[in-house]
Order: sequence, then structure tokens, then C-alpha cells
Amino acid sequence: MLYIIGLGLSDERDITVKGLDAVKSSERIYLEAYTSVLMIEKEKLEAFYEKPVTIADREMVESDSDQILDNAQNVNVSFLVVGDPFGATTHTDLVIRAKELGIPVQIIHNASIMNAIGACGLQLYNFGQTISMRPDSWYPRVKENTDIGLHTLCLLDIKVKEQSLENMARGRLIYEPPRYMTVNTCLEQMLEIEELRKEGAYGPETLAIGCVRLGTATQQFIAGTMEQLVNEDFGAPLHSLVLIGKRMHIMEFEMVRSFCPEQHQAKFEEIFKRDYEA
Amino acid sequence: MLYIIGLGLSDERDITVKGLDAVKSSERIYLEAYTSVLMIEKEKLEAFYEKPVTIADREMVESDSDQILDNAQNVNVSFLVVGDPFGATTHTDLVIRAKELGIPVQIIHNASIMNAIGACGLQLYNFGQTISMRPDSWYPRVKENTDIGLHTLCLLDIKVKEQSLENMARGRLIYEPPRYMTVNTCLEQMLEIEELRKEGAYGPETLAIGCVRLGTATQQFIAGTMEQLVNEDFGAPLHSLVLIGKRMHIMEFEMVRSFCPEQHQAKFEEIFKRDYEA
Repeated sequence: MLYIIGLGLSDERDITVKGLDAVKSSERIYLEAYTSVLMIEKEKLEAFYEKPVTIADREMVESDSDQILDNAQNVNVSFLVVGDPFGATTHTDLVIRAKELGIPVQIIHNASIMNAIGACGLQLYNFGQTISMRPDSWYPRVKENTDIGLHTLCLLDIKVKEQSLENMARGRLIYEPPRYMTVNTCLEQMLEIEELRKEGAYGPETLAIGCVRLGTATQQFIAGTMEQLVNEDFGAPLHSLVLIGKRMHIMEFEMVRSFCPEQHQAKFEEIFKRDYEA
Repeated sequence: MLYIIGLGLSDERDITVKGLDAVKSSERIYLEAYTSVLMIEKEKLEAFYEKPVTIADREMVESDSDQILDNAQNVNVSFLVVGDPFGATTHTDLVIRAKELGIPVQIIHNASIMNAIGACGLQLYNFGQTISMRPDSWYPRVKENTDIGLHTLCLLDIKVKEQSLENMARGRLIYEPPRYMTVNTCLEQMLEIEELRKEGAYGPETLAIGCVRLGTATQQFIAGTMEQLVNEDFGAPLHSLVLIGKRMHIMEFEMVRSFCPEQHQAKFEEIFKRDYEA
């Protein structure tokens, strides 16, 4: 059996009881480490499971999946994914390859940012499409959400296992430390792009929420206008951002206002009354 | 401490290790039983926790929350919610009341249908707003998703603790067994509404996926056109439905086609080529 197991959002104890049973029954355990960044170290997982864990990078999963699936017709193998197995990527290739080899697959779900974001005070029903802040087509997608008044969850870019130009030129497999986009950088870039495109997907006075370390003990939400939030200090990763759509309900407003620093609350209310409540 | 703990989608072993620790440390345990229907019985939870569990119905949570919160400044109390605590409802009132009473609150997240739906083969990024099939404003919301080519997750109506007219008239607190909308009923109603409104939010040949018992051992996906799926047998609850948006990617198509009964695959491909691929 191949188990694909969500680890949830924070630490080693966010695995489900069912997931932990599967890990304990497995002969080999792989940890997917390229679409997201674990907020805990492999060593902590190993201590908790009392078993060794192998890091599975993109090369291994995409080019050498038969190594992961080796003999999984006869023994259990666990493939661990931060969040839910169907978060950032669906690991479709691995599932299809397992099916070709006659290996049964069981998915063990967990929380991901896609549902935990409900903690920011906005209703999940009022979110439009989620966007990923990579330099492709995110702007029109935000605009589509804006045009119908929906909230937008923006997942910020994470760079893992990137090589420096020098190391790449010299063919040295030395990787830079992981880099995380901050809410501040994201907001700066967004506001610059809006300046260029002027299509009104959002603006300096659009209400937003910086969401950091979601689902962990140090989770924090800071609400304000986009231009106010540029200067807030959000601390350690991971960061994400929610742009608030015009359809914000008064009850959502009241919850979100509680995440607004005191000096910004008057402005927050003023903009809600001016742009949202109508 | 008030712990608000997601139970996940299927059985008692879908709670996280962290959630189970919180339950074990609690003096009282409440199970929220009005916004969703647990697929396992209270008795199974009690056996697994080795502790009594109190069912919290809407009256208790909305009118008598101080009973739930009693002395939670000094002892731990667990409030269990099927799925994730921020799924259907956000339990905002309970959190606000706890804060007023100086009771710390900790949320323990879990999977909900909002992320587990990724198992149907469609990318979460390509979903628009989720709709709830209650007789209010769902139609314009589906239309908004359709117009920009996004998928729509439709959560079907669940009726819990409803009284018959006779029992209500006689003031007898006898409740009907829970009732679940089936994919079939949902599709019939949707197609009737489209016949009346003719705004083109969808039609008999729109591609869709019936998703049943998501996250459980008997989970099943059946893909087809809306009119084909009306006649499929989806079995026991819970049911939900996904309408596929025009932006479906070829990789999504290939995954979803594998959920299509063989006799319907040719039609499925034909419609994909005619209406989606362009």
C-alpha cells in the first residue's frame, strides 16, 4: 500500500491518528520537500515516528518514483506531504504510476491553508479562486475575483533548492537556503503592477489581511489597507495574504476589524463604509 | 482553555494527535451536531476517547454557550466540529463569548471538504466560490463561476433535528431522522432552475462529478454530463457535486475521465473537445 499522508500545518503532532498508524506500519517513509516548506525538521519527525525519514526532492518524485514505489505491492510505504495531499500539487504522476504497478493507494487528508484561512474572519464561501504569486497570470485572476466582489487568497512564492548562477554555471549541486516571499514584498509588487496595468483589480486602499504562520502557535493576522500593511512587521515565514472583496459581510467586517492595529481602525472603518458597505 | 477541534471527514481516527491530546486533557467534551452530520456515532468517539461526550445542538451553542464555557478559565474544555472548525460555520459567537470571559481559545485544524475535494482530479486553484444548495442565492453564484470558467463545489443540503408539522403544532420535541440531499435530487433541481431562468449557468451537457463519502473508505467519484449523472446510483450519504468549469486543463480532464463510467467516456471526450478545449 502507498499511503499519501497530509501532515497539516504546523508540527509533528498535526498528523492524524490514522496517518500516524500508517507511518508506523510503513517500511519506508518519504517526505515531499519541494512544493512546500516544512515548519519542522526531518529529525523531529524521525524522533516522533521512531523511524528514519527520507527527503524526497523533485528529482526523486518526478524521475525516480519507482524507487519510492519499490515493492509497495507487498509492504507499506508512506509519502508525507505538508498540509493536505491535494494542496499545492496533486502528486498525480505518483498515483498514476502506483496504479500502473498494481499498488493500492490510500490518501489520508489533513488541514491545508485552503481551509485554515477561515481563521482570518472571512467566510470560506466568499472566497474566489486562490492565486499563487508566481510571475505568470495572477493579475487577471485577482481582477476576476474583484469584479464579482470575492476575497482572494494569495499564496506567496517559496523558493527551495535553487542554485546560484555561479554554482549552476560551474555545475556544483550546491543549493541556496529556502527563500520565502514576505507579505511586504508581495504587497509592493502588487501595487507596482497595478500602477502599470491600471485595471483596478485593487489599489492602495483595498482592505487586506496579512496572515502569517497559519495554523501554528505563533499564527497572526494583521488587517489594514494594502499601503498600510506594506510597512507592518510580520516576522518569520510562512506568509500569505488575503485581499478582501467588496462582498464582505458586516459580520466578517467585525471579525476582521479585531485584527486591525488600533491606529488603523478608524481608516479601516471609513473605507469599509465608503467602498464596501454599499 | 477552550479547544475548538476539527474531527476531519470520516471516523474517530481522523482527529490529529494534537487534537486527541487536547480531548484527553479536557474535563468536558462537546460535539457540535447541527451544521454537519457526523459519519460516526457519539458512542464510538466516547469509546476511543475513554470519556463521555455531550451533543451540542444549536440551542445549546447559541443560547446556552455559558454552560459550555463554564469554568474554562481553569479547566480544559473541548468543542468538537466535523471537518475543520472553519468549514460551514465559524463558531464566531462561541469564540467571542470565550474572549469576553477571559478564556483562551485554541483552534486545532483538520481536513474539510473544501480541500479534500482536490481528490476529484481538479486543481483547487481552478475552483471559484463554493455554494451551498439552500433555496437562496446559489444560482447567480454558479453563473459567476461559469462566466469565468471556474469549477463550482456544491455542498448539498443536510436537514438535522427538523420537526414534522404535526409534532411542531403539538409542541412535541420529536425530531425527524436526518435527511441528506442526493446528487440526483440536486441535479434535477438545478436543471429545472436552468430551464426556468435560461441564463446559461450550466446545462444538461455540462460536465460534472458526483462526489460521495469524501475522505471515507467508500469514497467515490462519478463523472459525466449533468443529465447522465441524474440516473447514476451514488449510494449512502454524504453527497456533493462539482460542476466543471470551461477552464479545465487537459491534465485535469485526464484524471476526471478516469472517474467516468465506460459507456459514457466517448460522450465525455466529445463534450470536452467541443466545449472545453477551445
